[in-house]
Amino acid sequence: DVALEVPHHDFEKVLDAQKHKRKVKNDTDLDASDLRAVIEGYLKAVKKHTGADFPTDPRAQLRAAIDAVLRSWNNDRCVKYRQLNDIRGLKGTAVNVQSMVYGNMGITSGIGVCFTRNPADGENRFYGEYLMNAQGEDVVAGIRTPQPISDLEKNDAHSYHQLLDVRGRLEQHYKDMQDIEFTIQEGKLYILQTRNGKRTVFSWLRTCVEMVEEGLIDEKTAVKRMPAGEFNKLFAPILDSEDIKKRSIKPLTRGLNASPGGACGQIVFHSAEAEKLVKEKKKKVLLVRIETSPEDIGGMAVAQGILTARGGMTSHAAVVARGMGCPCVAGASDLQIDYAKKTLTVGGQKFKEGEQIAIDGFTGDVYGAAVSVKPSEIVQVLSGDLTEDKSLLARHYNKYMAMVDRLRRLKVRTNSDTPKDTDMAVAFGAEGIGLCRTEHMFFDLPGQKPGRVLAVREMILAETEKDRRKALAKLLPMQRGDFVGIFKALAGRPATIRLIDPPLHEFLPQKDNPKGQRAVARELKIPVAKVAAKVEELHEFNPMLGFRGCRLTVIYPEILEMQVRAIIEAAIQVIAAGGAAEPEIMIPLIGHVREYEICRQQAVAVIEEVFTKKGRRIPYKLGTMIEVPRAAVTAGAIAKAAEFFSFGTNDLTQMTCGFSRDDSGRFLPRYVELGIYDYEPFAVLDQEGVGRLIRMAVEEGRAARPDLKIGICGEHGGDPKTVGFCHKVGFDYVSCSPYRVPVARLAAAQAAL
Amino acid sequence: DVALEVPHHDFEKVLDAQKHKRKVKNDTDLDASDLRAVIEGYLKAVKKHTGADFPTDPRAQLRAAIDAVLRSWNNDRCVKYRQLNDIRGLKGTAVNVQSMVYGNMGITSGIGVCFTRNPADGENRFYGEYLMNAQGEDVVAGIRTPQPISDLEKNDAHSYHQLLDVRGRLEQHYKDMQDIEFTIQEGKLYILQTRNGKRTVFSWLRTCVEMVEEGLIDEKTAVKRMPAGEFNKLFAPILDSEDIKKRSIKPLTRGLNASPGGACGQIVFHSAEAEKLVKEKKKKVLLVRIETSPEDIGGMAVAQGILTARGGMTSHAAVVARGMGCPCVAGASDLQIDYAKKTLTVGGQKFKEGEQIAIDGFTGDVYGAAVSVKPSEIVQVLSGDLTEDKSLLARHYNKYMAMVDRLRRLKVRTNSDTPKDTDMAVAFGAEGIGLCRTEHMFFDLPGQKPGRVLAVREMILAETEKDRRKALAKLLPMQRGDFVGIFKALAGRPATIRLIDPPLHEFLPQKDNPKGQRAVARELKIPVAKVAAKVEELHEFNPMLGFRGCRLTVIYPEILEMQVRAIIEAAIQVIAAGGAAEPEIMIPLIGHVREYEICRQQAVAVIEEVFTKKGRRIPYKLGTMIEVPRAAVTAGAIAKAAEFFSFGTNDLTQMTCGFSRDDSGRFLPRYVELGIYDYEPFAVLDQEGVGRLIRMAVEEGRAARPDLKIGICGEHGGDPKTVGFCHKVGFDYVSCSPYRVPVARLAAAQAAL
Repeated sequence: DVALEVPHHDFEKVLDAQKHKRKVKNDTDLDASDLRAVIEGYLKAVKKHTGADFPTDPRAQLRAAIDAVLRSWNNDRCVKYRQLNDIRGLKGTAVNVQSMVYGNMGITSGIGVCFTRNPADGENRFYGEYLMNAQGEDVVAGIRTPQPISDLEKNDAHSYHQLLDVRGRLEQHYKDMQDIEFTIQEGKLYILQTRNGKRTVFSWLRTCVEMVEEGLIDEKTAVKRMPAGEFNKLFAPILDSEDIKKRSIKPLTRGLNASPGGACGQIVFHSAEAEKLVKEKKKKVLLVRIETSPEDIGGMAVAQGILTARGGMTSHAAVVARGMGCPCVAGASDLQIDYAKKTLTVGGQKFKEGEQIAIDGFTGDVYGAAVSVKPSEIVQVLSGDLTEDKSLLARHYNKYMAMVDRLRRLKVRTNSDTPKDTDMAVAFGAEGIGLCRTEHMFFDLPGQKPGRVLAVREMILAETEKDRRKALAKLLPMQRGDFVGIFKALAGRPATIRLIDPPLHEFLPQKDNPKGQRAVARELKIPVAKVAAKVEELHEFNPMLGFRGCRLTVIYPEILEMQVRAIIEAAIQVIAAGGAAEPEIMIPLIGHVREYEICRQQAVAVIEEVFTKKGRRIPYKLGTMIEVPRAAVTAGAIAKAAEFFSFGTNDLTQMTCGFSRDDSGRFLPRYVELGIYDYEPFAVLDQEGVGRLIRMAVEEGRAARPDLKIGICGEHGGDPKTVGFCHKVGFDYVSCSPYRVPVARLAAAQAAL
Repeated sequence: DVALEVPHHDFEKVLDAQKHKRKVKNDTDLDASDLRAVIEGYLKAVKKHTGADFPTDPRAQLRAAIDAVLRSWNNDRCVKYRQLNDIRGLKGTAVNVQSMVYGNMGITSGIGVCFTRNPADGENRFYGEYLMNAQGEDVVAGIRTPQPISDLEKNDAHSYHQLLDVRGRLEQHYKDMQDIEFTIQEGKLYILQTRNGKRTVFSWLRTCVEMVEEGLIDEKTAVKRMPAGEFNKLFAPILDSEDIKKRSIKPLTRGLNASPGGACGQIVFHSAEAEKLVKEKKKKVLLVRIETSPEDIGGMAVAQGILTARGGMTSHAAVVARGMGCPCVAGASDLQIDYAKKTLTVGGQKFKEGEQIAIDGFTGDVYGAAVSVKPSEIVQVLSGDLTEDKSLLARHYNKYMAMVDRLRRLKVRTNSDTPKDTDMAVAFGAEGIGLCRTEHMFFDLPGQKPGRVLAVREMILAETEKDRRKALAKLLPMQRGDFVGIFKALAGRPATIRLIDPPLHEFLPQKDNPKGQRAVARELKIPVAKVAAKVEELHEFNPMLGFRGCRLTVIYPEILEMQVRAIIEAAIQVIAAGGAAEPEIMIPLIGHVREYEICRQQAVAVIEEVFTKKGRRIPYKLGTMIEVPRAAVTAGAIAKAAEFFSFGTNDLTQMTCGFSRDDSGRFLPRYVELGIYDYEPFAVLDQEGVGRLIRMAVEEGRAARPDLKIGICGEHGGDPKTVGFCHKVGFDYVSCSPYRVPVARLAAAQAAL
């Protein structure tokens, strides 16, 4: 009770003063009279801070110590630790009272910490450190360097062999890797504590697989105990921590760890510049933006990593980066980015375009220097750049995922818009596409024949249906080609293809980009005033709630017609060539069943026309996203008309909670701190609010159509907690970005257990 | 069957040719041989168009005629008519077959149309027109001018007295004013048809009141039959239609009839200019804007009317205008407004600032000339500018509203932010305030001591809590004064006061207004770059879903503290002076019960502090708006903490349907045309979607707290259909803008019947 109220460093000051006086380095170099002086100093410190003498009654001391431990539960460090490690629902801590043993009773005494297996890589080899004639604090203080545990045999062979025996017995008992603390007091070994060892995800993977092989645990246990939240780190390239340590590089600032992985490159502020540097000069670039938009897609595709000053975990930058498996630190709000001067300022330091920086997507750290980056072995093996026999990690991974797949019911699909991403997702185990965003195909990607965005702009600027159709006709073969590529990559797996979703203004250079507007005018040979007027006309106060999704195709059916035609013609082409294709056409942003019915009629008319023209019918499905709250509360009516539901939980969260995901960074982090939401609702599905609407929709949808196919295609599809919810509510599948497919498979298996 | 397929004008051509040949004006001037020629022409026309001879079998003719009537149900004119008059759910029309009588059998024959009372003003006097020796078409064609019905006595006293007798018997039988068509064939009167007469709302009012007084109908019938959708027209100033007709003024274009009433004034494009012209030059102005924002409030308050090129029925302009009872035509998308050149261009005509135009808020018509305007008598009487004995209309109105109030259960409150509006609303029968928007008080209104918006801006630009509190302290006495005024105007009626709701950027001049930003910088003595940086920082992609409502006060509790303090201090001040005050503090945009709990704790702390300081406790309530879908689906939890719910159906509709009310004008009108929504969901509550969430919330809210007070404060509160829904669902009250209070009272009574 008393002692705790003295700041720790007041005691240290006393000890340091005595060591300084004696000109010694180690506590153990102080003699008895020194220690007496130190104790007198301690007693004075206690008196000074508490106004009372240190209690001499041992029971009073013990009680004070117990109280101090109990109270520590609520100190800042513990609270923060629980927050960081997502430890919830506990009432407090417990206290064990043990008699003390001493590792500092001379050279036959010592202390140590060991792990039954390697916590870094999981190797089944005894691992740890010890110090003779020392207490635990001496290791922590870092004044003396501990020795590797294998050396203990030389100091005290008896204790060492006893420890090896304990190691085996404890693992057999707990059936998990143990983290053991011990003390040797005058040659006698005491085990102070054992607990399941913390470890890296690499160590988790190896220990789980090898323990199954050893017969120590069964597959269910191996799947259940994997921390799903960490699983994705297996696939990310990593900043070389040795390099950072060696060169003592300190982080400049920290943003949100939006997409895992380490990345390093030269700062580029504009997408076009990034593409140029990468293609023409073969540079590695890091795209630094206040925020990103669909126009940046080209630059994002070539960048090593993405760093933004604004936006949350599901901002455009974060979502696209995760989809690409590209490291991203988002919403680093300390950054001041000046596009005009091409500078990045943070904490008084200024960086110019071209200077090297690095980001750590695992932590959100931003470094103001070049840091070396290492790729993930698993990704190299899955993508065929490395053979499995060269990678123990990849072999363990494949064994582990086989266990996972044996245990899950929920299917896992991917969100993918390109054959390349689809290939990667299939390698990651995707069982189909849950969300193909067709509008991403409206931009010119590197390596593609240009002209897409130009045709889209021509369509938008057209004044008559005829002119719109003319522009759309140019897009048709390109979209059809995209779908052919995707169907081929899927090799018969189903593909849910969403029709155009974003507001049209996203395809035009905005007001603040008159240069871009002039370029568009030049390309389309129309007056720039017309471009500016159209941009003004399309301006929306809340584009998120504006003229987009099926609203576009209700008003301009010719867009839907082109897209549906491209999908069905592509599927027929692939099937005619001996392949397989299973298209599921998804109409987005439905709020009212009558909207869906209008779009469905438009689609069916085109499909039947294509069938007739090609002389061949193929199976297909028509369904909708449930992303507008109104659709969820009228799901019974919608399910009568739609063959499948895919919950677009990003938008459903935005509208249900009333949070713009691009703007809520200003208050959502604080909301989580205050405990209003347990997690940011764009990262982990809000089961109580948004989840209630989903449950209603599933229930009423299935009541209306018992074989209704139900999935999720929001970013939440890759979040383990959400996957668990989806399993429980009875979804058929979840869909997530390619790099999150493995964790979704894992979470699906864990949910089934 | 056959005849109908001949265009009507082909028959007319034949007739006209014959009259031209004979050089006569009237059909009756043609002789038998002429008619024979005409008939031959008709037969040829039939043959030409149908390929078949006109049937000579009378039964075939009759069948063709019956079919033609039945088919007319779906012709364009009928479809449009049903749309315009909101006639739904009918399967088709019926056909009466009668033997024909002829009004054109010489001077003892004739035809006429009459009303048992005056359809324009309702006076209980026989009203109508007739023509001797004519058929119905002759009246329609307008070639001969019909005579007033009273003159019939001179032509045919017997028929006239018979008609008077019929008039009395039909009214007694149908117990409503009748619209009667008759024919006199050679001195014998035939009644062709009688139906309830269409009439103006003025006529409805008088006929209802007088029929009750005559004992013809009971009060329930008088209340039930009033067309609620028309009721508001009683209160609006009106464009003088005589003036328009006399001068043959044609409308320039048509927008949405956003707020009823006629207005005329000189064009002004900027609010500040409007205020200046009105105050300094005593001009009547019409504020013409692309759209309005809260910054325009001063100009809107002084304008005769408001005309906007963008925005729907619940755009800022429309909502505020209705609240002020100010005529408004919104979303007149043909208008091209050039703020820089200060011109308004429409249909090739260009108007400069200062030129006179007029708008008709009843119809949405815009006139390019000055038109004279007449005020509503009822408003003059209610506001004390005219005594009741001078206005028959006002006397009828007061009698009618007494009947209405005897029949309703639902209370009616008003949305009001000023003592003046509150006075008006109370005169209109408001039983309290359902929504006092405190942020409107953050702008400087004409006639007030300036400094409000400056203090708000100082608060926004402050960098520390201390500086924010300093700025808020300046606002405190002003807000307190506002509330004192409102409580006094309410004389003890309850007032639901909503804490700050809009995003902060609404209080700063935006990017496109550098001059405004410079002015703010000058006023606050800070660099303009700081103002610009704050504007940039506050920019949101979707402000509707952004940093506003309780999110502001969760992050900046000091704003809530100032507002709550102002409310409670004002209430105590009024009560201490012998008055009464019943404050209900409403926390907006709650989505999660924990948000509400945080705000409630903040509020209670301030309230208790004020109670202690003033040595006096007063009753108050704390509650929330339900406007975020998440709040509706978690209403049970929220009701445990909140004492009342007020449904903010504007925002609830925006988020539930995913429609930005400022942007949805691009597609919503088309959606209604296509029948996706029966009505624009911002005008009439979407009962199936939004209404389902409301029913859930009422049910679960009342289950958690049986005495939960429930109201609605969106614009829908003044829509009769929505009021009916609110009655059915069990609301305690509806709240609407002052000018809609009477119609809400009426709708509440109709719902109870």
